[in-house]
Amino acid sequence: MYKIQLNTNLYGTVCSMNLKDVELLKNQYLNEMFSVMNFSEEEWQVITDLHVFRQYKKGAILLKKGQLSKVSYYVVKGCLRSYYLVDGEEKVNAFYTEKDYFTPSCLVTNKPAEHYLDCLEDCLVNVSTAEDEAIIMKKFPRFEKLCRAYSEELVVKQKAEFDDFKIASPEQRYINFATNRPDLLQRVPQYQIASYLGLTPQSLSRIRKRLSKNDFSANKVAV
Amino acid sequence: MYKIQLNTNLYGTVCSMNLKDVELLKNQYLNEMFSVMNFSEEEWQVITDLHVFRQYKKGAILLKKGQLSKVSYYVVKGCLRSYYLVDGEEKVNAFYTEKDYFTPSCLVTNKPAEHYLDCLEDCLVNVSTAEDEAIIMKKFPRFEKLCRAYSEELVVKQKAEFDDFKIASPEQRYINFATNRPDLLQRVPQYQIASYLGLTPQSLSRIRKRLSKNDFSANKVAV
Repeated sequence: MYKIQLNTNLYGTVCSMNLKDVELLKNQYLNEMFSVMNFSEEEWQVITDLHVFRQYKKGAILLKKGQLSKVSYYVVKGCLRSYYLVDGEEKVNAFYTEKDYFTPSCLVTNKPAEHYLDCLEDCLVNVSTAEDEAIIMKKFPRFEKLCRAYSEELVVKQKAEFDDFKIASPEQRYINFATNRPDLLQRVPQYQIASYLGLTPQSLSRIRKRLSKNDFSANKVAV
Repeated sequence: MYKIQLNTNLYGTVCSMNLKDVELLKNQYLNEMFSVMNFSEEEWQVITDLHVFRQYKKGAILLKKGQLSKVSYYVVKGCLRSYYLVDGEEKVNAFYTEKDYFTPSCLVTNKPAEHYLDCLEDCLVNVSTAEDEAIIMKKFPRFEKLCRAYSEELVVKQKAEFDDFKIASPEQRYINFATNRPDLLQRVPQYQIASYLGLTPQSLSRIRKRLSKNDFSANKVAV
């Protein structure tokens, strides 16, 4: 393992994370990433040169409908939310938290985004462009294998989530969410969770009340 | 382009496609695939040696809940359907037709399937195991790039479909389906389309009636 020399490509809006915290988080992220990959000295240099971190304040908008994003996001710290605006109503379609990777569809389709992306918390994200990724892949073809495996896993994970959403009752959908993403119950306003689950806030409230009365709580899943 | 020499790994149940049709379809498939990829002689040999085709009759079950699939499927001809059984009711989650590729989640997660996979029509499919794919990737690393790009596109396509399903009204969901997959309107029973769209057959019937009265038909999309 080589000594981590962080590059100085840190930009973005000012947020409440102090510089020490940010440096610590970046170190953690790079260490985690590099410990898995066993980089050579050359690989290390190219990767660190290309790594760009950005800080955003809670409420910052990263992408709007109609825009063409140039970057993918890896969440080092914080929570991003993706949503559509339908007849003035926000319809939440995704939350991205620590260790989640998100490629806006524009990067693949070259069509403007249909959705919005904003920060529900102060965020530290690692951003990469298609050009950065092409440089890495060309220089170090073994990353193709890693990225292919990751994408294939993501295809299966997404499919399972979609299937769950389709076949589960509203109550079961909430139980699945609370079981798989208990952290989000504490981090995200309830009306946004309702939107994500395709429910009205009133329906979600009724479901939570019903569950808190029966043995769902006995299964040690926070409602 | 090298001359196509089909291997003899053709097995599966007997179906109504005659041998001439099958050979024609296999030739078409291999030609299409190879014309894009510009194979070398060595690549050609390895790929054709590994290509296994199977024929299935309409109604054949390829995978059941609880089983571990060993293969991925590429549909050369026909229509596969994936569904869950929930309290005795079939909940359709996918249709796969010509040029669709489907990797059962078991191949990535190593957990038994939660769903079923059957044939809605007589089918000719190309099957591949994880071992076949590993052999190809190891011998010809450039396929990593192709497969990575394909998987990344699939992630974006799946996400868009999931988002559409979440944010669209039942009527809009049906319009999207009829617009994007008009072939399936003719090939799949209406109650299965209803299930796929998360609707009751009665709701779908009402939506179709309503649409046939207004200008949806004027947009030349068959309802």
